[in-house]
Amino acid sequence: MKKTKIEQTIQLINNQISNKSLIAGSRLPSVRQLAKQLHCSVSTIVEAYARLIAEGVLESRVGSGYYVRGKSEPMPVIETDIHYQREIDPLWISRQSLEAKNEVLKPGCGWLPTSWMPEQTIRKALKTAAKSEAVMLIDYATPHGHIELRKLIARKKEQYQIKFQLNQILITDSATQSIDLIFRHLLVAGDVILIDDPCYFNFRALIKAHHLQAISIPFTENGPDLAKFEQALSLKPKIYLTNSGIHNPTGATISLQTVYQISKLVEQTDLMIIEDEIFADFEYIPAPRYASLAGFQHVIQIGSFTKTLSAAVRCGYIIADPKLIDDLIDLRIATNFSPSHLNAEIIYQALMDSSYPRHLDWLKKQLLKLSNETIQKLKTLGIKPWVIPTAGIFLWCTLPQGVQAAELSKLCLKHGLILAPGNSFSQAEQSEQFMRFNVAQCIDKKVFDILQTAIQQLQNSSIENS
Amino acid sequence: MKKTKIEQTIQLINNQISNKSLIAGSRLPSVRQLAKQLHCSVSTIVEAYARLIAEGVLESRVGSGYYVRGKSEPMPVIETDIHYQREIDPLWISRQSLEAKNEVLKPGCGWLPTSWMPEQTIRKALKTAAKSEAVMLIDYATPHGHIELRKLIARKKEQYQIKFQLNQILITDSATQSIDLIFRHLLVAGDVILIDDPCYFNFRALIKAHHLQAISIPFTENGPDLAKFEQALSLKPKIYLTNSGIHNPTGATISLQTVYQISKLVEQTDLMIIEDEIFADFEYIPAPRYASLAGFQHVIQIGSFTKTLSAAVRCGYIIADPKLIDDLIDLRIATNFSPSHLNAEIIYQALMDSSYPRHLDWLKKQLLKLSNETIQKLKTLGIKPWVIPTAGIFLWCTLPQGVQAAELSKLCLKHGLILAPGNSFSQAEQSEQFMRFNVAQCIDKKVFDILQTAIQQLQNSSIENS
Repeated sequence: MKKTKIEQTIQLINNQISNKSLIAGSRLPSVRQLAKQLHCSVSTIVEAYARLIAEGVLESRVGSGYYVRGKSEPMPVIETDIHYQREIDPLWISRQSLEAKNEVLKPGCGWLPTSWMPEQTIRKALKTAAKSEAVMLIDYATPHGHIELRKLIARKKEQYQIKFQLNQILITDSATQSIDLIFRHLLVAGDVILIDDPCYFNFRALIKAHHLQAISIPFTENGPDLAKFEQALSLKPKIYLTNSGIHNPTGATISLQTVYQISKLVEQTDLMIIEDEIFADFEYIPAPRYASLAGFQHVIQIGSFTKTLSAAVRCGYIIADPKLIDDLIDLRIATNFSPSHLNAEIIYQALMDSSYPRHLDWLKKQLLKLSNETIQKLKTLGIKPWVIPTAGIFLWCTLPQGVQAAELSKLCLKHGLILAPGNSFSQAEQSEQFMRFNVAQCIDKKVFDILQTAIQQLQNSSIENS
Repeated sequence: MKKTKIEQTIQLINNQISNKSLIAGSRLPSVRQLAKQLHCSVSTIVEAYARLIAEGVLESRVGSGYYVRGKSEPMPVIETDIHYQREIDPLWISRQSLEAKNEVLKPGCGWLPTSWMPEQTIRKALKTAAKSEAVMLIDYATPHGHIELRKLIARKKEQYQIKFQLNQILITDSATQSIDLIFRHLLVAGDVILIDDPCYFNFRALIKAHHLQAISIPFTENGPDLAKFEQALSLKPKIYLTNSGIHNPTGATISLQTVYQISKLVEQTDLMIIEDEIFADFEYIPAPRYASLAGFQHVIQIGSFTKTLSAAVRCGYIIADPKLIDDLIDLRIATNFSPSHLNAEIIYQALMDSSYPRHLDWLKKQLLKLSNETIQKLKTLGIKPWVIPTAGIFLWCTLPQGVQAAELSKLCLKHGLILAPGNSFSQAEQSEQFMRFNVAQCIDKKVFDILQTAIQQLQNSSIENS
């Protein structure tokens, strides 16, 4: 590709610096002089100088002209990398996965490979957003956030027979931020909260950050254990935090009977159910929702578009009682000021694009196929799913006898494989025999090779020790 | 403009619904049938149906086809609007300004009019971002955030002789979020913190959200009152939160002597100075910074690009000791997961574009001119600046005798004028004679007309009452 005149000028100056015809402190020709010398326009030189200033090559001194910058010591880039020493805590999987280099295999992470995401839909949405009115690109969002996106979410919720008004929905920057805001508003340190065991490990990190007292309710194939849930109500918990739709990490879906029983139990208490619907768009058949039965008196729905659209475009939501939403707005202004209006616009454009439902269809079919294949491959290693999920990206599996998830994870990390050990998901630390696998990150045969070698090594050493 | 075939198809179906040839529950022709009927391609109809589904006009039933959706009751849109009843608290100005309709005049708000912002720079940055590699558009950011943006910020800080390594900077979603994260990590409820009096009202909202004990240090023309600062150190404050560069609301700049004295006082304590540099890009001559003298052992710098680039593209930063940054990353994952990588990319592209320094030059000249004009216009109303700022958008002014800022603000609100009353900025509530004016929002003559009428009304009633 032919270089523009601006790029040619930049290269020329960079060359002069490399071959020392310009050194630190040298004064450059004036814009007019250089334009004349290179037979190009003044604006070309202005642009070239401006870019070189932005890159830190030149500096402009007021009233004096342009100079080659004094060489500051080169900035040492300390690359973050895998933390082999870090103990397994609720943040272990997130930090390892987020900091891993590209060549690392990540069956433990909670997201799809980049190539599985609707890249073209996002690019198109960005281009559309680039043409939208100035307020969308420049100004703070109104406190409730993007109105068209709120309307669209309201329409999507109608398939669950969930109805609400537009002042009951608040656009946020992520599902995590949504929960964080609700916790900050409704809870104080020491408050009792119910969570599933196992549950999404970041729920545990959030609970720790808020210094809450979490009571684990065993999660069965049909949802939370009803007897244990009822028993725990005597401790006056303020919140029950759970995944509706597809449960993380188990992949199980709650039954309508369980939703009904829990709704009845909660009705007489002050407890609020936060149902996180982050995996909703992976569902074939919508699983029951708490908000479908009981509305928003005891239920808050939260969610985001991270899993099926983009994790780089941050956008989530909260649906709740309008008074609660109004209080959350005050708290959000104090602590975050405003959500990203532009991100909400990009998400809105992407959701409205016809390529998105087509992408979802493709995605769901791929995942179903891959889920079956992964189950077969894990079986040969003695790893078995606790439940066969109807949809989604996760398999929650038991490990072979004598193999502990934490040990296996640490061993595999040394071979470039990031796993999701069971106890990260268990407040009661009762899942050391479990491992969560993301089927979309299990395509590479090496995943199973590394697992096999590591399992054999652990089993051998366990025989030696016994 | 000629409609595309897709748009024509959408219109055709919408017309059939309006004229009742299609009613709620009607089944539409299959994609193939309709394509044949309208002599267009199957993909045209697929796209048209998909958009009508996204708009909530049609619904798709699995294995059965496309139907006109049952009319749900129209969703009542409850528009948020000016809250006349709301008492003046630290969030009063933010809520009023963010919720105001376009025709409302906002000399009290803290941002530039949309038309003053570098709209074309942002549009160009968006288009460039739309072409960047997929990971930028799809994936979570690495924990520290966009590396090129971090390098660019490091280069910008060199003009202040502030040096640090790239693992000392964390990209966040806003300056407010930056402070919030630091507070959450370093403080617990009841901790003592020092703030300027007056200070940015949202600092007070943040302090309230964290249940901290704030000690007000009077802010003089040269920075915080040194004697009061030293005296307050006996209370073992953990943090001093302030604006470096241009102070909000006063527009004053701290002197190098004050920076030196405060730095020495702090050296022997555990106190951390958080210097918020959010107005840095408005400066003609960079004012002294705490981090320039003492590095990051007792200083944390935070900032954002909201004021001069875009408030819709959320992006901020924290520069601090590397261990503190590492701890903040854990907290950020737990409470927000990841910053917006795409927003960081857009901000990076905009900062690198040569139109941005040109825009800043224009902006600074405009503001200086407008500041002088506004001072003159306010003078005729008996409103005088406490200090003449060297740069920035604010004038901190005393009101005429007998006029209280809160009363004046409430009265003007009824006439469509949002002001920023002094006590919003004062923890000690000692600024009832002060008002902050944003000169860029004072162009409309009506601002001064409404002010004049309201002041006369208040002065008359005060004479009657006396």
